[in-house]
Amino acid sequence: MNFRSDNEVGAHPGIVEAVARAFAAGSTPSYGDDPWTQKVEHRLRELFERPDLLAFPVATGTAANVLSLACCTPSWGAIYCHPQAHIAVDEANAPEFYTGGGKLALIDGPAGKIDPKKLAEALAQPVYGVVHHPQPAAVSITQATECGTVYAPEEIAAIATATHRHGLKLHMDGARFANALSFVGCSPAELSWKAGVDVLSLGATKNGALAAEVVVFFDTSLARDFEFRRKRGGHLFSKMRFLSAQLDAYLADGLWLDNARHANAMARRLVAGLTPLKGTQLLYPADANEIFVVLPAHMHDALQNAGAQYHPWPSDRPGERAYRLVTAFDTRPADVDQFLSIAKAASTP
Amino acid sequence: MNFRSDNEVGAHPGIVEAVARAFAAGSTPSYGDDPWTQKVEHRLRELFERPDLLAFPVATGTAANVLSLACCTPSWGAIYCHPQAHIAVDEANAPEFYTGGGKLALIDGPAGKIDPKKLAEALAQPVYGVVHHPQPAAVSITQATECGTVYAPEEIAAIATATHRHGLKLHMDGARFANALSFVGCSPAELSWKAGVDVLSLGATKNGALAAEVVVFFDTSLARDFEFRRKRGGHLFSKMRFLSAQLDAYLADGLWLDNARHANAMARRLVAGLTPLKGTQLLYPADANEIFVVLPAHMHDALQNAGAQYHPWPSDRPGERAYRLVTAFDTRPADVDQFLSIAKAASTP
Amino acid sequence: MNFRSDNEVGAHPGIVEAVARAFAAGSTPSYGDDPWTQKVEHRLRELFERPDLLAFPVATGTAANVLSLACCTPSWGAIYCHPQAHIAVDEANAPEFYTGGGKLALIDGPAGKIDPKKLAEALAQPVYGVVHHPQPAAVSITQATECGTVYAPEEIAAIATATHRHGLKLHMDGARFANALSFVGCSPAELSWKAGVDVLSLGATKNGALAAEVVVFFDTSLARDFEFRRKRGGHLFSKMRFLSAQLDAYLADGLWLDNARHANAMARRLVAGLTPLKGTQLLYPADANEIFVVLPAHMHDALQNAGAQYHPWPSDRPGERAYRLVTAFDTRPADVDQFLSIAKAASTP
Amino acid sequence: MNFRSDNEVGAHPGIVEAVARAFAAGSTPSYGDDPWTQKVEHRLRELFERPDLLAFPVATGTAANVLSLACCTPSWGAIYCHPQAHIAVDEANAPEFYTGGGKLALIDGPAGKIDPKKLAEALAQPVYGVVHHPQPAAVSITQATECGTVYAPEEIAAIATATHRHGLKLHMDGARFANALSFVGCSPAELSWKAGVDVLSLGATKNGALAAEVVVFFDTSLARDFEFRRKRGGHLFSKMRFLSAQLDAYLADGLWLDNARHANAMARRLVAGLTPLKGTQLLYPADANEIFVVLPAHMHDALQNAGAQYHPWPSDRPGERAYRLVTAFDTRPADVDQFLSIAKAASTP
Repeated sequence: MNFRSDNEVGAHPGIVEAVARAFAAGSTPSYGDDPWTQKVEHRLRELFERPDLLAFPVATGTAANVLSLACCTPSWGAIYCHPQAHIAVDEANAPEFYTGGGKLALIDGPAGKIDPKKLAEALAQPVYGVVHHPQPAAVSITQATECGTVYAPEEIAAIATATHRHGLKLHMDGARFANALSFVGCSPAELSWKAGVDVLSLGATKNGALAAEVVVFFDTSLARDFEFRRKRGGHLFSKMRFLSAQLDAYLADGLWLDNARHANAMARRLVAGLTPLKGTQLLYPADANEIFVVLPAHMHDALQNAGAQYHPWPSDRPGERAYRLVTAFDTRPADVDQFLSIAKAASTP
Repeated sequence: MNFRSDNEVGAHPGIVEAVARAFAAGSTPSYGDDPWTQKVEHRLRELFERPDLLAFPVATGTAANVLSLACCTPSWGAIYCHPQAHIAVDEANAPEFYTGGGKLALIDGPAGKIDPKKLAEALAQPVYGVVHHPQPAAVSITQATECGTVYAPEEIAAIATATHRHGLKLHMDGARFANALSFVGCSPAELSWKAGVDVLSLGATKNGALAAEVVVFFDTSLARDFEFRRKRGGHLFSKMRFLSAQLDAYLADGLWLDNARHANAMARRLVAGLTPLKGTQLLYPADANEIFVVLPAHMHDALQNAGAQYHPWPSDRPGERAYRLVTAFDTRPADVDQFLSIAKAASTP
Repeated sequence: MNFRSDNEVGAHPGIVEAVARAFAAGSTPSYGDDPWTQKVEHRLRELFERPDLLAFPVATGTAANVLSLACCTPSWGAIYCHPQAHIAVDEANAPEFYTGGGKLALIDGPAGKIDPKKLAEALAQPVYGVVHHPQPAAVSITQATECGTVYAPEEIAAIATATHRHGLKLHMDGARFANALSFVGCSPAELSWKAGVDVLSLGATKNGALAAEVVVFFDTSLARDFEFRRKRGGHLFSKMRFLSAQLDAYLADGLWLDNARHANAMARRLVAGLTPLKGTQLLYPADANEIFVVLPAHMHDALQNAGAQYHPWPSDRPGERAYRLVTAFDTRPADVDQFLSIAKAASTP
Repeated sequence: MNFRSDNEVGAHPGIVEAVARAFAAGSTPSYGDDPWTQKVEHRLRELFERPDLLAFPVATGTAANVLSLACCTPSWGAIYCHPQAHIAVDEANAPEFYTGGGKLALIDGPAGKIDPKKLAEALAQPVYGVVHHPQPAAVSITQATECGTVYAPEEIAAIATATHRHGLKLHMDGARFANALSFVGCSPAELSWKAGVDVLSLGATKNGALAAEVVVFFDTSLARDFEFRRKRGGHLFSKMRFLSAQLDAYLADGLWLDNARHANAMARRLVAGLTPLKGTQLLYPADANEIFVVLPAHMHDALQNAGAQYHPWPSDRPGERAYRLVTAFDTRPADVDQFLSIAKAASTP
C-alpha cells in the first residue's frame, strides 16, 4: 500500500524491455543520431498532429522544464507561475540558474491553477521595455497541477490569451500530461498547442519510464539554441537511445494513455471509497492521480499501523490534518481495496 | 568493424539485467534513498580503500565533470587543464556555466598530458589574492587522456604537488579511469587519492553502462554543496536506482576491470597488427583503448571500402592523414582481425 | 517644483568641491589604496561605533545591494524581501544575476514593511537541507522603505530575531538610511548592527552625492569574497578617490544628516499643508522624504498646470488617484510653499 | 616622477569643471534622459561619421568591455583575444560572468597584437553548429595594446576579415583609443568601423576623466538588449549626467586628442632619452603612452633612489629586468627630463 509518489514505483516492463532491446542492438550513432530518437520525434508529430514540431529527450523533469524555460526567458526576464508550481518550490532555483538569473513571479489561483484574471492584471503592468523592471517573458502552467487538478482546454486558452497578448510564451510542465489527457479525454493537440501552449515538458518518468522526459516545441522558433543549452547543461546523453527507446515504447500503442488511465482509475477508486467516510474531505477535485484529503486521526493511525504509506500535506485550516495519496501505472486494485477497507473499518462509529 | 567511439556501442548485458531487476523490484524511495545507491557508495569505499569517501551518481560525463569542478572553483577562479581536455573542447562551456563564470587556463604538454613544470610555472605567478586576476582554484587531468595515454601514479603525484602547493584542488576526469587502471595495474587508490586526486569523475558509460557516472570525493569537504548543485543543475534522478543499479553491477565482481581489460587488449591487438605495416605511425603511445594513427591513403581507402568505421583526426604534420580508432568492452576480436587483414593486404607493395 | 525623485536633483556643493579637490591633488594609488578610501572606512567605524567593520565604496545602489546580497546567498538560496522592495521590482533581476540564480521570496506587510510574523512563518517551513527547495539565506529590508516609512530599531530587531534564528543574514538596503536615521533620532549603530543588521548598503547618491554608495559589513565574515565579486562585476573603480572623496565629505561634519534632515523637513511641511485639504489622503505615514498621497482631480490638474512635477502612483482603491512626492537635500521651502498655495487654492470649495 | 599608471593620475580640470557645472544645474531627468547624455551620443555620431551609432556611458573599463562582449556572445560562445588582453588577465572573469559562462580563447601574436593568420586558422576549425564545441562568437582586440603598440587600420581590417568571414563580431577595447588615434593620425572612423570594428569600448578614464567610458555600437543590431544588461549589472547611473558631462567635455574641442597627444609625446621623449643609453632596450615599439624597457640594475637603483615610480614587468629573457613606464595627459616635461638626467648620469661609464 505505497501511495507516497509516482516516482517511487518501478517501471513498466514494456519500457524496460525496449531499453534492453535497444542496447542489445549493438553499435549506433551517439548523441541522438540514432533511429530511436528519430522515431520518437516522428511519433510525437503524429500524436500531436503537428508535422513540424521539434522534440528533444532529456532525463529529468527539472531538466525539461528549465531548458525549455531558458529558451523563452532572458536573464532579465520573468516567468509567471503558480506559487505551488514545481519550478517554484521543488527545483532548488534551477530555473533561475538556467536562465542566468531570471525571476519567477507568482500568480495565485484556486486548486493549483493560475487565475487567468490575476495573470492578465499582472501582465498589464506598464513594465515592458522599462529597464528597471524584470521583463515578462513566459508563463508556466502545470498539467496536471500540483494539486491533482487538470486544466481544461478552455482554461489553458484563457491563460494563453493573456500570455500571448503581451508577447510572452506559454510553457506547460507536463510531468503528468498523460494523466491530464486521460481525464479530459480530448486529443493531445487540443490539450496543448491548439489551446495555446508553445512548449511542453512531456513527462514519462512518473508514468512508467525509468528516466525519460521530452521537450516538445510547438513554437519551433524557440528551439533555436536548445541543443547548445542542453549540452552546456550536461544533459546531452551520448547513448541517447536509452532515453529514446523508453519514449518510443511509451508513446507506441497507447501505452502512455493506458498507464495514465489506470493510475487515474485507481485514484477515483480511492476517492469513491474514502469520501463517503465521516471526517474525510478532499482538498481539491481529484482529477488525475493525486488525492489531497483530510483524514480523521484514528483513520490515519489505523492506516499507518496497517503499513499504508503516504505523505502528510499542509492544510490551511488549523487543526485539520491532510494527506497526499498518489497512484501510479502499477497501483494494484487490491492495495486500494485493502486501504479502503481499513479506512472504512476505522471510520465505523 | 565500428571503431568510431566507445559511446556508440551497446551496454553490457549484466548491467542491463541489473537495471531490469532493479525496476522489477517495485517501489523504493526516490532521489537516492534506495539500497542500490547505498551499495554503490559502499563498494567504492571498499574498492578505493577510503571508508569516508562520498559518492554521487549522475548520468553524463559532462555533469560529473562540471558539478565536481564547481565544488572547487568560484566564479572568479581558474581551472588549469590540457588544451585537448574534454572540459575545454567538448563541453560547450559547461564548466564555465556551472562555476558561474570560471575560466579554463590551458597548460600544454606532450601526448595529452599536462607538463608539470609548465603547470608549476603558471601556478607560481603572483596572482593570489589580487582582485584583478582570475584566482587559481583547480587543476583537472583526464585519465586516460584524450590522446589515449595514461598518467602513471608518479606523474599524477607531480601534478598534485604543484596543485596543492598553492592550495588548489586536483580533479580527475576519469571517463576512462578503468582503462587507465587496467593499463597501470595498480590499485584504484594508488591511481587516485594516494597520488593526490581530490575528486574523481568515475565513468561507466563508455565502459559498458547505459548512462552512469559517479562523482567520488576523496576531499570530502568539497562535497558540502554538491547535492544542491546537482539538483539545481537538473541532475538529481527521482528514480535514482536506474543510475545506481548500473554502477552497482559495474563495480561488482570486477566487471569494470574486465570490460576495460578487454577494450585495452583489443587496442593492443590493433596496434600490434598495424604498426609493422609500411606508412603507418602512432601519434601517441596507445596505452588504453584509443589509437591515434597515421594510415597511408590507399590503406584508408581499402578499409573504408570494406566498411570499417573510424574518425579522421587532425595531424600536426602537413600532408599526413591521421585517424582515431576506439575499442570497447564488446569489440570482437574477429572485427579487429578482419580490419588488420584488410590493412595488411592494402599494405603489400 | 520638482518632486519627481531625489535622484533627479543635483549634488551638494560641498561634495562636488571635495571631488574637485581630490582630483586636483595629483597622483594617488589606484583601486582604493588611497587616503580618501581609508578615511571613509575610518569615519564609518567611528560613526557606527564598530572599529572592526569593513566598508567598500561602489557607485550605484543596485551594485551595493546585489554585491552584498551575493555575499550572503548561494545560487540555490532565497532572499526574503517585501513585494515592493527595490531589489524585487526595480533592479531588472540584478540580485538573481549576481547570486548566480538566487531567488527572491516575497513577504508582505503594511506600508512597505515586512511583517515579522509572516517572515517567521515562512522561515519555519521545513526546507533546510532539503535539496529540492531553495534554501533560505538572507532577509533584505529597505530603510526608509519604498513607501516612505521607517522601521524603528525594535521592528528591525524583530525581523533580525526571525532571520538569525534560522541562520540567515540580515541585509539593509539603506539607500535612504540617513533619512530614516534623522526620523528615528537614534544612533547609526542602533539603527543597524545593534538591531541585528549584518550588512548595510549605505546610500549617498539620493542625499547629495553625485554617485556614491558604500557597502558596510558588520558581520565581517561575509566580506571574504567581496572584493572579487566587486571586480568581477566591473564595479572596482581605478580612480576610487572619486567615490571615496564624495563619501568622505558626505560623512564629515554631519553633512549626511543635515541633508536628510532638510529633506525630511520639507516632506513634513508638504504633509502639514496638504493633509488638511479636502479630498487628500496619505497612503502611508510620511516618515522620511517620500509622500504617497491621494489628490483630488482638480487639485492635481491645477498643480500640473502650474508646472509641479511628480509621479502618479498606483492606489489599491478603484477610482482613487494617488501620487508620489519626493523631497531632497536641496528642496526649496519656497517651492513647497508655492506647491501648497496652489493646492490650497484648488481645494477651496 | 610617477610613471606607474595612467589610472593613478588626477583628472583634467576642464572635465572636473564640466562635472561641477552639470551638478550645479539643478534637477534633470535621471537614468540618461538628460541633455548631457544626448549630447555625448550626438558628438560621437559626428566624430565617428556615423549618424546611426548608439552610445551608452558606463563608469569603468571592465563594465564597458564585458557589457559589450555579452551583447555578442552567448553562454556557449567563445571570444578570441590576445593572451595579454585586459579581458583575459585583469578582469577577474568578468567577461565569463557577464556572458553567463562564455569562454575566452587565446590567440597569440607579437607585441600584444593578435596574429591574423593564427586567428584565421583557429576560426577555420569545423566547430560551427556542433553542440559539443564552444561556438566562436566574437574577437576582441585592444587599442592601444597592453604592450603599448597600436594596430594600424589595415591590421584591424585583416583581423576583421577573418572575424566577419565566420559571422563573428569584432570588439575593440579602446581604453587607450585616443592614444592610438593620435599615433596613427587617421580619423576615428578609419580606426574603428571603417576597419571593421562592430562595437568599441571607448575609454576616457585613463586620459583625463574621473571615471567614464562609453560603449559605441557601430553594428546597432547588437545593442538591442544593452540597456537591460547594463541595468542588470548594476551599471545604470541614476545621475547619469555625471558620466555624460565628463564625456561631453572630453570629446568637445578636441580635448581627448590633446590629452592623448601630450601623453604620447611624453612617452616619445622618454624613449628618445633612454634608448641611446647603454644596457637599455625596448621590449616593444612604444607607439602610444606605455613604454616597456629593460634597464640596467644600477640605472634602476639610481632612479628608485631618486623617487621615480614605475612597475617591474616580466621579461622573457632570463636575467633581464624590464619595467613599464606610463605617461599621461598631465605628465610634466620636467619630470621626464629629471628622470632622463638621472638615468643618463647612472649610465655614464
